[in-house]
Amino acid sequence: MSAKGSIVIDLKFERRQVDAALVGAFKGHRVLMADTANADLSDARYALLWKPDLDLFTRAPKLEILFSGGAGVDGILAVPGLPDLPVVRFVDESLTVRMSEWVVLQALTHLRQGPTYLKQQRERVWNERAQPEAKDLTVGVMGLGVLGQDSVRKLKIMGFNVVGWSRSKKQIDGVETFDTGGLDAFLAKTDILVGLLPLTDDTRGMFDAALFAKLRQGGALGKPVFINAGRGGSQVEADVIAALENGILGGASLDVFEREPLDAESPLWGMENVVITPHAASASDVSVLFRAVEAQIERYEAGEPLRHVVDRATGY
Amino acid sequence: MSAKGSIVIDLKFERRQVDAALVGAFKGHRVLMADTANADLSDARYALLWKPDLDLFTRAPKLEILFSGGAGVDGILAVPGLPDLPVVRFVDESLTVRMSEWVVLQALTHLRQGPTYLKQQRERVWNERAQPEAKDLTVGVMGLGVLGQDSVRKLKIMGFNVVGWSRSKKQIDGVETFDTGGLDAFLAKTDILVGLLPLTDDTRGMFDAALFAKLRQGGALGKPVFINAGRGGSQVEADVIAALENGILGGASLDVFEREPLDAESPLWGMENVVITPHAASASDVSVLFRAVEAQIERYEAGEPLRHVVDRATGY
Repeated sequence: MSAKGSIVIDLKFERRQVDAALVGAFKGHRVLMADTANADLSDARYALLWKPDLDLFTRAPKLEILFSGGAGVDGILAVPGLPDLPVVRFVDESLTVRMSEWVVLQALTHLRQGPTYLKQQRERVWNERAQPEAKDLTVGVMGLGVLGQDSVRKLKIMGFNVVGWSRSKKQIDGVETFDTGGLDAFLAKTDILVGLLPLTDDTRGMFDAALFAKLRQGGALGKPVFINAGRGGSQVEADVIAALENGILGGASLDVFEREPLDAESPLWGMENVVITPHAASASDVSVLFRAVEAQIERYEAGEPLRHVVDRATGY
Repeated sequence: MSAKGSIVIDLKFERRQVDAALVGAFKGHRVLMADTANADLSDARYALLWKPDLDLFTRAPKLEILFSGGAGVDGILAVPGLPDLPVVRFVDESLTVRMSEWVVLQALTHLRQGPTYLKQQRERVWNERAQPEAKDLTVGVMGLGVLGQDSVRKLKIMGFNVVGWSRSKKQIDGVETFDTGGLDAFLAKTDILVGLLPLTDDTRGMFDAALFAKLRQGGALGKPVFINAGRGGSQVEADVIAALENGILGGASLDVFEREPLDAESPLWGMENVVITPHAASASDVSVLFRAVEAQIERYEAGEPLRHVVDRATGY
C-alpha cells in the first residue's frame, strides 16, 4: 500500500499524450486509469478530470479533491451528481502565455487586415491598403482573471488602446475597467471584443445579436471584430453568423464553439473574414498539468491549503 | 518671397494621399511639386524624396538638405549624380510601432501554425496540433536599429527567446547579441529569422542559400522560418524559393521583394506556408512624414543640428 494517496485519472485527452506524460509522474502515488476495464477505484483519494464519466463518483466514493484538467471547470461543475468536494482549477503560466499568444495574434491579424491580404495573395494582387495603427483601435477584453489580465497587458504593449470588463469591477493600472452595470458603455468603446469568460449561468449565451449591436461601429477598421477563446457556450453561434453576414461584425476569430468539434456544415468554416482554430488557443500541456497536480497534492498532504479552489457559487 | 526656404516634393506615393496631407502642411514655405510641368525648382532649398526623378538635382541646384520619404534611404543613395548633401531619414514612432505589429504578427503566425490551421479550416478539419510555446523558440533579429530594438522588446514580452545581430555589436539588456564575426553562431541558435536590415553593399543578397543552411534545424517547429521586412534586395529570392521547396525553410513571411510589385508569376504567391504582404509592414503615413520634415526644417532654420542624418559611408 502506498504511503501517498492514490489518484484516478479520467481525462478525455489523446491517450498517447497522457501515457507519455505519465512516465515518471506522480511518484509514490498509485495511478488508476478510469478507462481501464474493472479498475478498482474504491480507494482513490484524488481525481484528475476532463469530461469525466458519469459513474466515476460512484466507482470512487472516497475522493477528497477533484482536479480539473483545464483552466475551465464548467464541464466538471455540470456533471450530474457531482460530490461536494473542492474543485481545483489548473492554473499555469504556460496556459496563460499560450492564451495571450493566441489573443494577440488574432487582434493583430484583424488590425493588419490578415484576411484581406490573404485573399489578395491567393489572387496574386499587389495592393497596399490604408492601415490604421494599434492605438487607433480599442480592444475590449471581457473576463479579467489571470488570462484576461495577461492579455490586457500584452495588447497594451503592442500599442492597442485597451478597456476591460468583468462581473465585479477590477482595478488594472492604466486600463479603464467596467463591471456588470457598465457593459453598454464598455461595448460602445470596443472595436475588437475579446471573450475570455468562464461558462456560468450568467455568461451562457451572452455573446448574442443584442450585444454585437452595441459594439462601436465606424471605428478605424469600419466594423467591430469578435474574438472568443473562453467557452463556446457563451456565444449564440447563429447570432455570430448572422452578424457577420449582415455586416454588424466585420470579422471574427473563434477557438470555441457551442458544440465541439465544430460541425463540418457550419458556414463559419468558409467565411473569409473568420479565423477558426480547434479549441487550441491554450491547450493544456499534459506534463505540466501533472506536475501542477502533484505539487497541489504535496501541499495538501503536508497540511497546507490548496490553491485555485473554485468558488462553487460563482462557478470560477 | 517667402521668409522660409522653399521645398520641392518628389514622392512617388499615391497622389491623392499626398494632396490630402499637403493641406495645411509646410506653413510659410513655398511647396513645389517636382511633377508639375515646367515647375521652377531653382530656388528650392529642401527636397523631400522617394524614388526621385534623375533630373531633379539639375533642376534644383540650390538644395541644402535631402529628406527621405521612408525609413530606408537606399533608393536615394543609389540615385546617379546624387549631390553631396545631408540625407535625412524619416524616423517616427508610428513607423516603429507598425513595423513591430507586423513582425510580432508574423512570428506568432508561424509559432501558432497559422498556415496549417488555415488549411484545415478550408478543408473543414478539426484537428488540434502539438503546440510549442514561444519560449521554446528563438527569434533571431538581424538589424538592431530603432525598428529592430522595438521588435526585440515586444517579441520578448510575448515570451520568445530572442537573440540579435548587427554589423557592429549592440548591447541590449537581457538579449544575447552578435556582430559580423558571430553571424554563424547567431544563425545556429535561430528558429525564426527576422530581417530588418537596411540595403547596403554589405547586405545585398545576404539572405541566400548558404545563410539559410546555417539556421537551426530540428527546433520546436522542426524547420526554421524566414521573415523579411527590411529590403527585398537583401534576399536572393530564387534561394528563398528553393529553401522552401527543399525543406531547408519551413515557412516565410515576406513584405519586401527584389522587384516590387512582386511578379504575378512568382511561385511565392502560391506557397501555403508563405505569407506575402505588399511592402505594407510599415507604411509611411504622409501627414506624419510632413510633420516630421517640417520639424526638422524648423530646427535647421533655427540653427540647430538635424536629426537622423544618414552616414554615407555605412549607408544608414
